[in-house]
Amino acid sequence: MSAKLLSNILSPTDLRKLPAEQLPALAQELRDFIIDIVATKGGHLGASLGVVELTIALHYVFNTPDDLLVWDVGHQAYGHKILTERAAVFHTNRQLNGISGFPNRSESSYDTFGVGHSSTAISAALGMAIASQLKGFPERHHIAVVGDASIASGMAFEGLNHAGVTDSNLLVILNDNAIGIDPSVGALKDYLTAVKDGRNPRDNNMISSLNFEYSGPVDGHDISLLIKELTRLKDKKGPKFLHITTTKGKGLEPAEKDQVRYHAPGKFDKTTGEILTKPDENLPPKFQDVFGLTLVELARENERIIGITPAMPTGSSLKFMMDAIPSRAFDVGIAEQHAVTLAAGMATQGMIVFCNIYSTFLQRAYDQVIHDVALQNLPVIFCLDRAGLVGEDGATHQGVFDIAYLNCIPNLILFAPLNETELRNGMYTAQLGLDHPIAIRYPRGRGYQLNWQLPFEKIEIGKAKTLASGSKIAILSTGTIGNNVIKALEQTGNSELFSHYHFPFIKPLDITLLNTICSTHESLITIEDGTINGGFGSTIASFVSGHYRSLTVKILGIPDEFIEHGTVLEQQEKCKIDVNSLVTFFSSY
Amino acid sequence: MSAKLLSNILSPTDLRKLPAEQLPALAQELRDFIIDIVATKGGHLGASLGVVELTIALHYVFNTPDDLLVWDVGHQAYGHKILTERAAVFHTNRQLNGISGFPNRSESSYDTFGVGHSSTAISAALGMAIASQLKGFPERHHIAVVGDASIASGMAFEGLNHAGVTDSNLLVILNDNAIGIDPSVGALKDYLTAVKDGRNPRDNNMISSLNFEYSGPVDGHDISLLIKELTRLKDKKGPKFLHITTTKGKGLEPAEKDQVRYHAPGKFDKTTGEILTKPDENLPPKFQDVFGLTLVELARENERIIGITPAMPTGSSLKFMMDAIPSRAFDVGIAEQHAVTLAAGMATQGMIVFCNIYSTFLQRAYDQVIHDVALQNLPVIFCLDRAGLVGEDGATHQGVFDIAYLNCIPNLILFAPLNETELRNGMYTAQLGLDHPIAIRYPRGRGYQLNWQLPFEKIEIGKAKTLASGSKIAILSTGTIGNNVIKALEQTGNSELFSHYHFPFIKPLDITLLNTICSTHESLITIEDGTINGGFGSTIASFVSGHYRSLTVKILGIPDEFIEHGTVLEQQEKCKIDVNSLVTFFSSY
Repeated sequence: MSAKLLSNILSPTDLRKLPAEQLPALAQELRDFIIDIVATKGGHLGASLGVVELTIALHYVFNTPDDLLVWDVGHQAYGHKILTERAAVFHTNRQLNGISGFPNRSESSYDTFGVGHSSTAISAALGMAIASQLKGFPERHHIAVVGDASIASGMAFEGLNHAGVTDSNLLVILNDNAIGIDPSVGALKDYLTAVKDGRNPRDNNMISSLNFEYSGPVDGHDISLLIKELTRLKDKKGPKFLHITTTKGKGLEPAEKDQVRYHAPGKFDKTTGEILTKPDENLPPKFQDVFGLTLVELARENERIIGITPAMPTGSSLKFMMDAIPSRAFDVGIAEQHAVTLAAGMATQGMIVFCNIYSTFLQRAYDQVIHDVALQNLPVIFCLDRAGLVGEDGATHQGVFDIAYLNCIPNLILFAPLNETELRNGMYTAQLGLDHPIAIRYPRGRGYQLNWQLPFEKIEIGKAKTLASGSKIAILSTGTIGNNVIKALEQTGNSELFSHYHFPFIKPLDITLLNTICSTHESLITIEDGTINGGFGSTIASFVSGHYRSLTVKILGIPDEFIEHGTVLEQQEKCKIDVNSLVTFFSSY
Repeated sequence: MSAKLLSNILSPTDLRKLPAEQLPALAQELRDFIIDIVATKGGHLGASLGVVELTIALHYVFNTPDDLLVWDVGHQAYGHKILTERAAVFHTNRQLNGISGFPNRSESSYDTFGVGHSSTAISAALGMAIASQLKGFPERHHIAVVGDASIASGMAFEGLNHAGVTDSNLLVILNDNAIGIDPSVGALKDYLTAVKDGRNPRDNNMISSLNFEYSGPVDGHDISLLIKELTRLKDKKGPKFLHITTTKGKGLEPAEKDQVRYHAPGKFDKTTGEILTKPDENLPPKFQDVFGLTLVELARENERIIGITPAMPTGSSLKFMMDAIPSRAFDVGIAEQHAVTLAAGMATQGMIVFCNIYSTFLQRAYDQVIHDVALQNLPVIFCLDRAGLVGEDGATHQGVFDIAYLNCIPNLILFAPLNETELRNGMYTAQLGLDHPIAIRYPRGRGYQLNWQLPFEKIEIGKAKTLASGSKIAILSTGTIGNNVIKALEQTGNSELFSHYHFPFIKPLDITLLNTICSTHESLITIEDGTINGGFGSTIASFVSGHYRSLTVKILGIPDEFIEHGTVLEQQEKCKIDVNSLVTFFSSY
């Protein structure tokens, strides 16, 4: 396929020279370009296919980058990147030193605001719009493109609620495809569906209640209609809201049909859409499936068990419980704050709640963890998926802060299993009944054990384990990064110097073992896949420096910088916690 | 005044025996009881006076505590406490070992959910309602009472959005008095006002768009009307929404007229309402006023300066700028998430944004600080009011986690001034232009300097100060708690042993001075009014244990527990960081 039009568009300036009648053909070229590259390089597919026409229309009608365009979340911004000077580097998407999978201010002036987490676009664009007014640019346009799953999050409502009482030049475009990563949920979703179906009034609706001029719904794949409507809205002052309807995965039939799987399908055949990465039965399971399947096992035996996910049933594998026991498994949408306090409310009534939230997204519910759960000492079981380094999603999604931000919270047990068995037994132990909330952190992706579905064993809370006994130096690790230590010691020549201790409990610490360790070694090394500042190592260092003279502690972990996209291994190398770096480090003793 | 009816009500069971026609008289007694005690003991006044009738009606109609009643925020729950077995201890409100100023599960079975921060009630009550269904109590009622300022917060929307697609037995009561602590703001507030004024349809409104059965507005001071309406709603299944209108401060004329001042007026004349605590010109200023007045000074000189507060213009003293330069000072309502990302959006356009959020409430915007500000390295200036121990508001409001939760965030400067001058100069320095975001933390209440409005001086970022030079032991403090160290050393007999260093920058640390300190002392003591876990002391300990053998570090600060209400001094004593405890500790060397 030749991209005659697209290959001549280096920036939106070129785009705006095209006659409007050529834009549908350009849309086809852009769509093919995205499919071509994502098919071989991986990444997020469906969202960008859904907004090809919108992307072209926005850059055609508005004078980007002077007019300021903010994409919410950013899964849908591939077309935007390709049209804004990055077609030639798009094949480096999500790779180390390549372009980011999300809009990123450091990458392009067209990326006005870095995104990754949802529902920030309205607030950011409103801030820009108010700044433009104050700086004397009242004609500048500010556009936030928000999906229907994102707009149901509380933060988006806060932005709308403020924008509605300003006269700022803000256009919010609701890209309504009825799906986020999984299908959208909630009362607002039902409402929007009713609007689309004509069952609700268009001119006195919920959005206009917030002082926005509402227009739509408009077919988001009709490029001339989009241009007409955007041009009309461009001349209107004050906050405006355009509701468009699109199809996620538009233009690739299997992606339109199985929108969840084609959100980020991995490699696929660009013609047929057939997904090429097949599940391999000979690999250890994903930690996500260990969580999801174990939860079903436990919930079948205990009627008080509940599962909650904020909008990640597939990603977290809570879908297994949603399928098996739907009455006790809840997808609450992109609403982490609500998810945590809902869990707290359930826990007051004696329910045993597994609240599964990605480590990076629990940042959204930090206050609720402190104020609603820990302060009341409610035994909610937090499962922090994608803790540690996450790979290609990059800096926005790293789960590296959780140890630090949870370690300072009283009453909370902080548990980081070494492997599948320990995750499973930790879940089992937690649902037996703890006197405290617990956070169980585990990484994205596959574990280490083919044979993991073993009978449950109760874990002793606060107990650490000796994995290797050496003569001089004690290595203390927490979580799955301990497997790197195990492998590194196997490859280290002087391994007889090293003891290795696994601390599954960052809190409470095994002080008894820690005292023994301190009394019998010359120095300590700590390793974690969390921030060095305020993490496990700093806790050990605080203990040691308070009680033991003549003992040094070397803390390994995530340094005080944001770790960009790349593979997990590349990110570990950057942080010097990969196996090879550890071998080198251990060998230096 | 004799409380004939009230004195016979030990619990809601007694209340429910009263004939309905006696309830208005009971309301008067309850109101007088609240006024009598708050007049001499202090506390939150206006909110509880506004819901006297609602409180009686709820406990009269519903079978509390079997029916589950959740008060949002809890400022309004004094009447509830008095009617639920706590009249005799109500005079101990907010005192050390007395009852909490907020509903608290450990205090009473009628307090179904601990509150303090806003907008949690819908999520919590929904969690209870779903649990009741699963446990086989479908008839149980679950009631969330939410104010109009609170319901505009994103978290409340998340709760409504979920509740609307359940068939849970949930009643949300909107207590609409058009004010939080300061007057409510935002598009939803305008909408609710229009509903009350009859300018919006009642039967197809925003709330019913979310699948709630809407009723109201009802006069919240008409007790028989309330009882009638609550009784009617009691028989309806599914999510219900009752909109009532009340007057904050109802029944005490000055409190009705000046609702902001009488939110928590301190001691007052119970008959006239006259506030007895007068401003004392001979005391040092409040840090809040240092912030507020300094910001006005700076903003007059620099057109790019903006001030933002989420709903605390009076408490933070941003009101000075709102009065002086309203076009650049924004109260965005209870919307901390939005406040932070709005600030980030403005910062992308070159604005210098002072975003003032109480330390405890910044927990609500933790992800936005990481993802929208720090990751993009936008030079937003966070002013963290009420950092450290906060006194009578107690465990829900302690600003003791911020050092730990911010210290792990890359790019962020973390600054804790010793006194007014340093706060002022820190603000001055920040607006000159930093390459990074900065968080400036300072406590509630008065400072130390009568003469504080001195000419501005630029501060060197990352530089610590030597306050005293001794022979053996180095004391390292950060923030205003350093003043306790100064006073304690004045009273310590062996003070010649001690050096005292003030680290205004927790991040970046003054490594040069730290190396000097470590080289010239036998041991270190760190002091902060933040959590020991993950705070300033743990950072020092991590450094020391990595680089210096034979040096111990003793970390003083907030221990790993929630610190309950009391005076700040009592809370410092509990944590052993008050002057007397420090004198004792220093003298032990």
